[in-house]
Amino acid sequence: MAHQQHAELLQTLHDCTATCNHCFDACLQEEDVKMMAECIRLDRECADICAFLEQAISRNSPFVSELAKVCAAVCEACGKECEKHDHDHCQECAKACFKCAEACRNIA
Amino acid sequence: MAHQQHAELLQTLHDCTATCNHCFDACLQEEDVKMMAECIRLDRECADICAFLEQAISRNSPFVSELAKVCAAVCEACGKECEKHDHDHCQECAKACFKCAEACRNIA
Amino acid sequence: MAHQQHAELLQTLHDCTATCNHCFDACLQEEDVKMMAECIRLDRECADICAFLEQAISRNSPFVSELAKVCAAVCEACGKECEKHDHDHCQECAKACFKCAEACRNIA
Amino acid sequence: MAHQQHAELLQTLHDCTATCNHCFDACLQEEDVKMMAECIRLDRECADICAFLEQAISRNSPFVSELAKVCAAVCEACGKECEKHDHDHCQECAKACFKCAEACRNIA
Repeated sequence: MAHQQHAELLQTLHDCTATCNHCFDACLQEEDVKMMAECIRLDRECADICAFLEQAISRNSPFVSELAKVCAAVCEACGKECEKHDHDHCQECAKACFKCAEACRNIA
Repeated sequence: MAHQQHAELLQTLHDCTATCNHCFDACLQEEDVKMMAECIRLDRECADICAFLEQAISRNSPFVSELAKVCAAVCEACGKECEKHDHDHCQECAKACFKCAEACRNIA
Repeated sequence: MAHQQHAELLQTLHDCTATCNHCFDACLQEEDVKMMAECIRLDRECADICAFLEQAISRNSPFVSELAKVCAAVCEACGKECEKHDHDHCQECAKACFKCAEACRNIA
Repeated sequence: MAHQQHAELLQTLHDCTATCNHCFDACLQEEDVKMMAECIRLDRECADICAFLEQAISRNSPFVSELAKVCAAVCEACGKECEKHDHDHCQECAKACFKCAEACRNIA
């Protein structure tokens, strides 16, 4: 992987992790938490796999491609759930997820 | 750390991780999710730090004692929140958390 | 997933994580560390993905199947590297890895 | 935590994680791996706790302060080991670790 592409991908994963975790926290403080249950679940899934892939890439793991394929699927699912909700944190999260899903597909 | 104590502690951490994650999943499927918001948050905190400490112990980390101290505090907080709720998954989680908190204090 | 199969799989993943981390630690203390470099690398890969999958299963993640497929590949690779080395910790690790690889393929 | 300080800290942790993982990978490829054994061990410790704290901060964990205290100690230890070695990846890693240790102490 070229160095610049590598750094950009790590940054995209980092942003997606942080945005999903912020959305997780914000969803738990919403008035209607029940409506956000699937969002809460997928925010955790997505933050965890993005953080995992970030570490895998930076330690030069031989399994980056396989992990990126899974990560793309998780980001896509989280983005689709988040974009259903009008909250700013969900809309921002959807954007970060779709951007990250595309970046992951590029290396999968 | 004596080998037997080591194996027991790893098992206690493993059980606490699994029980907290089960509680996290079950809380998200409850009728009243809002009431479970703090439980959901702390279940994730507790599962993550227990899993982290499990890895640290098994790789012979030089920081086990410091991590165990934090883990004891997280387990204690999660147990206290869980025991407020009547659901079986919360009551079981409280038990696993208090047991794990004590095990962590013993090595902190 | 039936409850019994679930509990067994979590235990298999737990054992593989602990065994890989012990092998990681032991390899770093060997006389000839250079010979163990690939083992050290794969021990970390394997411990991390097994711990990740353990958490995913216990929180009822929608992505267990995809993750198990990757985990099986990592376990297989780690087992193949470990079995090349005569050290007890490597031979034990190879066994734990191959057992875990099979368990992962069963749910992938 | 003010938003700007928060974003800077997440970036510092992100950089430290990536730098430690790069050093881990590079140490495993050095001619004299034995000399790097402690560096390899601490690189993993440091990358893992920084990644963990990054997630904890971004999900608004109630345990950020306690975790930051441990993270500062790990970064300090990793930095001290890395700075003993002349390799560029070790010297860069030492810098990232000391910077991160200080950032962690500021919120501990």
